[in-house]
Amino acid sequence: MVRNLGAQNSIFNQYIAEVRDAVIQQDTLRFRFNMERLGAIFAYEISRTMEYETKEIITSLGIAEVPVLKQSPVLGTILRAGLPLHHGMLSAFDKADNAFVSAYRKHTKDGSFNIQVEYVSSPDLNDRVLILSDPMLATGASLVLSYKALLAKGKPSHTHVVTLIASTEGVEYIKRYLPADDITLWVGAIDEELTAQAYIVPGLGDAGDLAFGSKI
Amino acid sequence: MVRNLGAQNSIFNQYIAEVRDAVIQQDTLRFRFNMERLGAIFAYEISRTMEYETKEIITSLGIAEVPVLKQSPVLGTILRAGLPLHHGMLSAFDKADNAFVSAYRKHTKDGSFNIQVEYVSSPDLNDRVLILSDPMLATGASLVLSYKALLAKGKPSHTHVVTLIASTEGVEYIKRYLPADDITLWVGAIDEELTAQAYIVPGLGDAGDLAFGSKI
Amino acid sequence: MVRNLGAQNSIFNQYIAEVRDAVIQQDTLRFRFNMERLGAIFAYEISRTMEYETKEIITSLGIAEVPVLKQSPVLGTILRAGLPLHHGMLSAFDKADNAFVSAYRKHTKDGSFNIQVEYVSSPDLNDRVLILSDPMLATGASLVLSYKALLAKGKPSHTHVVTLIASTEGVEYIKRYLPADDITLWVGAIDEELTAQAYIVPGLGDAGDLAFGSKI
Amino acid sequence: MVRNLGAQNSIFNQYIAEVRDAVIQQDTLRFRFNMERLGAIFAYEISRTMEYETKEIITSLGIAEVPVLKQSPVLGTILRAGLPLHHGMLSAFDKADNAFVSAYRKHTKDGSFNIQVEYVSSPDLNDRVLILSDPMLATGASLVLSYKALLAKGKPSHTHVVTLIASTEGVEYIKRYLPADDITLWVGAIDEELTAQAYIVPGLGDAGDLAFGSKI
Repeated sequence: MVRNLGAQNSIFNQYIAEVRDAVIQQDTLRFRFNMERLGAIFAYEISRTMEYETKEIITSLGIAEVPVLKQSPVLGTILRAGLPLHHGMLSAFDKADNAFVSAYRKHTKDGSFNIQVEYVSSPDLNDRVLILSDPMLATGASLVLSYKALLAKGKPSHTHVVTLIASTEGVEYIKRYLPADDITLWVGAIDEELTAQAYIVPGLGDAGDLAFGSKI
Repeated sequence: MVRNLGAQNSIFNQYIAEVRDAVIQQDTLRFRFNMERLGAIFAYEISRTMEYETKEIITSLGIAEVPVLKQSPVLGTILRAGLPLHHGMLSAFDKADNAFVSAYRKHTKDGSFNIQVEYVSSPDLNDRVLILSDPMLATGASLVLSYKALLAKGKPSHTHVVTLIASTEGVEYIKRYLPADDITLWVGAIDEELTAQAYIVPGLGDAGDLAFGSKI
Repeated sequence: MVRNLGAQNSIFNQYIAEVRDAVIQQDTLRFRFNMERLGAIFAYEISRTMEYETKEIITSLGIAEVPVLKQSPVLGTILRAGLPLHHGMLSAFDKADNAFVSAYRKHTKDGSFNIQVEYVSSPDLNDRVLILSDPMLATGASLVLSYKALLAKGKPSHTHVVTLIASTEGVEYIKRYLPADDITLWVGAIDEELTAQAYIVPGLGDAGDLAFGSKI
Repeated sequence: MVRNLGAQNSIFNQYIAEVRDAVIQQDTLRFRFNMERLGAIFAYEISRTMEYETKEIITSLGIAEVPVLKQSPVLGTILRAGLPLHHGMLSAFDKADNAFVSAYRKHTKDGSFNIQVEYVSSPDLNDRVLILSDPMLATGASLVLSYKALLAKGKPSHTHVVTLIASTEGVEYIKRYLPADDITLWVGAIDEELTAQAYIVPGLGDAGDLAFGSKI
């Protein structure tokens, strides 16, 4: 199932506009802050699909029955680009456990690339709700590889894949290679074009570079 | 119209549980942070009712059409209890204009009190969307007085009243004294009891004291 | 005693440069964030003058002796301009009590003005360390009036007055009208000129408008 | 050179007390927030050693000369434990470039371990000020390996190593294996004991687990 948060107008789209804007995104503080705010909204919307149990809360004046989360999710993200999105989600789900995966494009001399998964840090994922975030879903290859790398740590009860801007091709790739019943794909926008170098157009550029500076 | 965000389960209710909890609320950092997170969720939900216009955003790779807010709202709050809620809303609507009102309960010797409006700082409110926040809606008297004090600064196109915990009586008071067509009342929970001293039960206690310490 | 944090180079001056800059300050999110960061640095520097007591902290592996604050300060600020600075200080001293004062310039027809103190909310100040913040120290009149209004709530053991940009005249006014032994004045910069309309030059403009929008 | 920020009393030690405290550290939100605040203070103190140039800032009312950073530093950190500390430093140096290194203890069957460096993401480090953070300096081995891995990306003009709690042994290790002229070691506290399993005593436990939950 694909849930597109940009399909209904809200302040969410304002932040999308700012992270896409080639002028505004030069302010890296604002770029990261927008990613954090977007992450917090994704977290809130995902939280509406989770399970709650009613708890008696003792206030200073009485007792209130309030539904609280049955279990905190595991927030997984793909380094380094996913960190600001992850930070926003962690500020919403502050009791969450966390997983980090590094996957990168290893460029070959002919201009093509392979995805490499290097670093995986994760709790036991069995029967947990996993929220796996990556700001851009280009080909979808690194997301699928990262998800599969995480499965070595246990089978989540459900996985929410969160990506800010997805290519049409990336969405199709997820649908093809990840099990539909176990996965909800949350996106902020779907862009049609994917270049031969696997950049989404119009996209927003390189989310990792924009948040943290270029690397060599 | 009354919109109760606590009626559907989400992480919002988790924060409500924490601000109500007599033990957890002793951590004033967390209390204020919960108020900020609640304010950000109110802001997001209110933003879904606002007007947008499509803008062409120039990305580093192309042009994206993204709907952005036609106009930022005015975020008004009632001092001092409303400040953390306001802070959360301002972190969502970062380009908003702001209004501050101080209204307080002037206790008389017989134990009753009057509401006094002292300080009003506001932009021109004509044709603006006003979001007026106060964490607790007890009798509703200070909210109605504050709203009326703000009307001296112009007539908003629409006003969203935001209150975390409302008494049933407070909700009725708002319905009776504020014009239904111009007002949407957003609440996080509605509690039935209101004591003779105008405390909501079970409520959460004194939101101002919990955020900022007691005053003399 | 006057302590000028801008006298030694640090990232503090970077933030001062940004809040002064007529272009950068148009980004109100960054303006407020800079005020918060400046507030946090003032808080840290002031904390170095406070009293500590050694406490035995039980870690998961042993016992550590760590000096902790003997008593949290009271963070007072002047509305509305002082709120972002106050917010930054409160994020540093998260257990502080808080005081709010509203003082404003009541302009008369001939272009002159009086300072009015309206709203005062404060804990008992007797024997407390008070940190009283206001981003601009122009004539010094509103600061002195606010301080005196707060004295009705008790006599602090010491008061730290925090102001980002002070005029030379404002500094002299504080020295003249506040008791030297009880007061430390902390500034980020001292500007020489004060216009007839009581604006500091080069200053940064109206800190309240820059943080929260203009008011009518 | 070793700079111990805990040697002089300030709010810094309050945060140290809280991250060490086995009860308080169970609140992971506060644990991470304390790490962020500590990171911001390290950043401020380090910024006092950096180079500045005076810039003319055009205010709305005149021109101010303010010293600003000549060049932003590169903020490097060691995954995953270093992320909250790094986040705090990045909120101070918001224009910084960033480097991430993953190094982990690969335990062998006999209970000993080797340090493995896996993931390195870094800008060109030639002639840059590098600030490399890791909350705990136990044996010092992972820090030295990470530093050497980063040298493949260029030679920094100076490196500030930031660690919250160092063992005496770790400090000696840094002094022995890193070039004294190129390195400043900043610590928040120095603990004497290091267990056979390389845990610092009294220390604070596993900073990564405390911030992000345990991993398998």
